[in-house]
Amino acid sequence: MNSTDIHSMMQALGQAARAAAQMTAKASTATKNQALTVMAAAIRRDEQLLVAANTSDLALARSKGLDAALIDRLTLTAEGVATMADGLEQIAALPDPIGAISDLSYRPSGIQVGRMRVPLGVIGIIYEARPNVTADAAGLCLKAGNAAILRGGSEAMQSNQAIAACVQEGLKVAGLPEHAVQVINTPDRAAVGELITMQEYVDIIVPRGGKGLIERIANEARVPVIKHLDGICHIYIDVYADLEKALHIVDNAKTQRYGTCNTLETLLVHAGVAQQFLPVIGRLLQGKKVELRGDQAACALLSGTKLASEEDWRTEYLAPILSIRVVADINQAIEHITRYGSQHTDAIVTENYAHARQFLREVDSSSVMVNASTRFADGFEYGLGAEIGISTDKLHARGPVGLNGLTSEKYIVLGDGHIRI
Amino acid sequence: MNSTDIHSMMQALGQAARAAAQMTAKASTATKNQALTVMAAAIRRDEQLLVAANTSDLALARSKGLDAALIDRLTLTAEGVATMADGLEQIAALPDPIGAISDLSYRPSGIQVGRMRVPLGVIGIIYEARPNVTADAAGLCLKAGNAAILRGGSEAMQSNQAIAACVQEGLKVAGLPEHAVQVINTPDRAAVGELITMQEYVDIIVPRGGKGLIERIANEARVPVIKHLDGICHIYIDVYADLEKALHIVDNAKTQRYGTCNTLETLLVHAGVAQQFLPVIGRLLQGKKVELRGDQAACALLSGTKLASEEDWRTEYLAPILSIRVVADINQAIEHITRYGSQHTDAIVTENYAHARQFLREVDSSSVMVNASTRFADGFEYGLGAEIGISTDKLHARGPVGLNGLTSEKYIVLGDGHIRI
Repeated sequence: MNSTDIHSMMQALGQAARAAAQMTAKASTATKNQALTVMAAAIRRDEQLLVAANTSDLALARSKGLDAALIDRLTLTAEGVATMADGLEQIAALPDPIGAISDLSYRPSGIQVGRMRVPLGVIGIIYEARPNVTADAAGLCLKAGNAAILRGGSEAMQSNQAIAACVQEGLKVAGLPEHAVQVINTPDRAAVGELITMQEYVDIIVPRGGKGLIERIANEARVPVIKHLDGICHIYIDVYADLEKALHIVDNAKTQRYGTCNTLETLLVHAGVAQQFLPVIGRLLQGKKVELRGDQAACALLSGTKLASEEDWRTEYLAPILSIRVVADINQAIEHITRYGSQHTDAIVTENYAHARQFLREVDSSSVMVNASTRFADGFEYGLGAEIGISTDKLHARGPVGLNGLTSEKYIVLGDGHIRI
Repeated sequence: MNSTDIHSMMQALGQAARAAAQMTAKASTATKNQALTVMAAAIRRDEQLLVAANTSDLALARSKGLDAALIDRLTLTAEGVATMADGLEQIAALPDPIGAISDLSYRPSGIQVGRMRVPLGVIGIIYEARPNVTADAAGLCLKAGNAAILRGGSEAMQSNQAIAACVQEGLKVAGLPEHAVQVINTPDRAAVGELITMQEYVDIIVPRGGKGLIERIANEARVPVIKHLDGICHIYIDVYADLEKALHIVDNAKTQRYGTCNTLETLLVHAGVAQQFLPVIGRLLQGKKVELRGDQAACALLSGTKLASEEDWRTEYLAPILSIRVVADINQAIEHITRYGSQHTDAIVTENYAHARQFLREVDSSSVMVNASTRFADGFEYGLGAEIGISTDKLHARGPVGLNGLTSEKYIVLGDGHIRI
C-alpha cells in the first residue's frame, strides 16, 4: 500500500472504532461478559489452529534469523493458549467498572453531586512479538467499555489474526459491533504513524514493548500515551534495617526474575550497616552468578566487584547484574533515587517509623514500598485483577494500570428542579 | 529579546521550577498555609498599590483601543482585591490533598497496598486579561504541592507583577523557594511556545481564556493540556418532565449569566410537550430579550423565532441567544447531544426513572444532570472548594478541576519482609 492508501485505511478504521465505542460504552455487563467467555471458549476450541498459525510465524521468524529472545516471546504453546483463555475468563469475572458511582453526596444547594465511571472511548495498543497481548488487550479494553485498535508485531501476524478471529466470534455472539476490536493487518509502519496521530478517533495509546518502541511512539504521538520507559528499581537498606529481612527482599527482588521491569537494579546501603550486610548479600548473589558493580566503598567490602560507572546508575540491566552504592544516610539514598531512578518502583528496608514515613512521602515513584520486594509491583499482586501495563507517567494513570486506568469519570448531578442562585 | 535569549530564559525558569517543586512537594501543610495567608495579608495591605498598577494597565489598554469586554476582564477594583485575598484564605482552609492515603488494604500475599496522593510537579498556567488568576492559580498550585509558572496577558503586566510581589512575600515568610511561583514577565509570545514544549520541566499546562487561545495551545503543546474548548450545553425537556420545574431550570440556565461556559445554548424539547411548553418558555425568554432560533417545528410554535442553521447547533453563543429543537424522543435528544455537543454539561428534565437513568449513562459529557440547572457545573457548587478550570478532556481530570486535579496518586506497599513467590 502507498501512504495515501494507509492514511485512508486508518481513517476508516478510526471512524469505525469511534462508532463502535458508542455501542460498547452502553453495553451491559452481561453482554460484555458473554463476549469474553465466548472468546475464551473459541480460543480453547481453536488451540491447534492457533498453535499452527504460530508455528508458521515462528518458521518465518527463524528464516529471517530473528534472535532467540524474540523467538521466545513470539512462541505460543498449548499452555500459552490455555493461559490466554483463562485471562479472558478472569476479566469476565472482574466487577464492571463502568457506571459505578462514587462520592454521591448532598451539597448545601440541595443538589446531589457524584462521579460516574465512564469508558475512555477508543484505545490503541501497540505491541511487539507476544501474541497473547492480542487477547489480553482486547478483553481489558472491552470490559472497560472501550473500542480497541490493536497493532501487534509483524512477526506475529498469523498468530494475531487467528486470535482475532476468536475475538470476533465473541463480539458477534454477544451482539457487539465487529469494529469494537480491530487488528491492523498491514506490516507497514506508516499505519502506526497514523494511529498515534488520529486525535479525533483515538483517545489513548498504550505501547507495550521495549524502550526503543515506546520512546519512538512517545516522541511522535499526538494522542496521549500511557507508558513506562525504564524500570530502574532501587532498594535502600537503612541503618535501622532488619538485615535478615533485607537479605530475603534483595535476593527476591534481584533474582526471582531478571528480565522484568520491577526487578531490582541498584542496591543502596547505609554506611552504618554496609560492613555487616554487603559481604553476606554479595556471597549470596555471586553464588547465583549475579555480577556486582559497586562504588568504591562497596568494592572495598566485596571481593570480585567491578567499579560502577556513572552509566551503571542509569541502566536498567534486565540481566543478572546489580549496581551497589554505599550512602551516608536516608537523604542521600532519596537523592540518588530522585537523580537516577525512573519513577517505577523503589523500596526501603527499615524498622524505623520516621524513616519509613519519610521514604513513602518523598520518593516520587509510581510504587514506593517499605519492607517488601519490588517484584510486588504488578496489577495482580495489587488486586487490580489484570493489568494492561505499568505507567510511570503522572497524568491519568500511575503504577500498574488495570481496568480503571482504561476509564475516566464524569460528574453527575441529581436535582429536583434546582436552580443556581 | 531574540529567540535564543527567550529559549535560555525559559530553560532556566523551567529548571528552577523543577528544583522548587521538590521542595513544595514535601512542604508541610502548615508551611503551605502560612504562605497562603501571608500572601492574602500582603494583597489586602497593598490594595492601593495593586489598584494603581491596574490603573496603568487600563490606561495603556484604552490607549491601544482594546475592546470593552477585555477592559472589563482586566479591571481590578478594591473589591476585586479583597476577593483575591479571600480566595487565598479559602484555599488555606481546604484540607491538604497531598499525602492522603486511600484504599489501603491487605492482599492475600500479606502486603498492604494503597494509593498516596502526590503533586504533579510543575504546572504552567496561561491566561488572558484577568489579573486575579495570578493569585488564584498560584494558591491552588502551591496547596497541591506543585511549582507554578504563570503567563498572564501582556495587557495585565503591571497588575500581575504587583500581585506576584505579594505571592513572593508569602513564599519567603514561609521559607519556601522563591521559584515555587514564577511569573513570566516578557510579552513575547515565543515564551509561551517554549513553556508548552518543555516536557522535561513542565508536567501540565492549564490554559484559561478564549477558545482561540486554548485551541492554539492545544495544537502546539507537547506537554499535556487540561482544557475545555466550548461549553455548548443542552437541556432536554422529556415528555415526562414536570414543566414547572423545566421552566425555572431553563430560565436559570440561560439567563442567570450569559457569558459563562455552563450557560444553556441549545434547548431540546420532546414533541409530546412542545406545544404546551415552548410558547410559555418562549414568552419568558423573549421578555428578557433572548433571541430564539428554532428548527421548523419550534418556529411553528414560537412567533418571532428565526430558523436555526446547522451552524447554530454547533455554536456556543455566550450571549442572549438560544437555539431550540423539537425531538421525537430521548434517543434523538441523546443523538443530538452526541453529535453537536462539546461534552461540557448537559441536563435532562424528567420525572421518569428509566429516562433519567438512560440519560445519565449514555450522555458522554463532563457533567450530566437530572432536573438541575447547567449553571451548577462549577467547582464551588460541587464542593471542590475552588477550581482552576473545567476540563472536557477524558484523561486525568474531567469536569471542574479542583486541588485533586492538580495532583496524581502513587501506589504504596507496606510489608514486613515480604517477598514474591
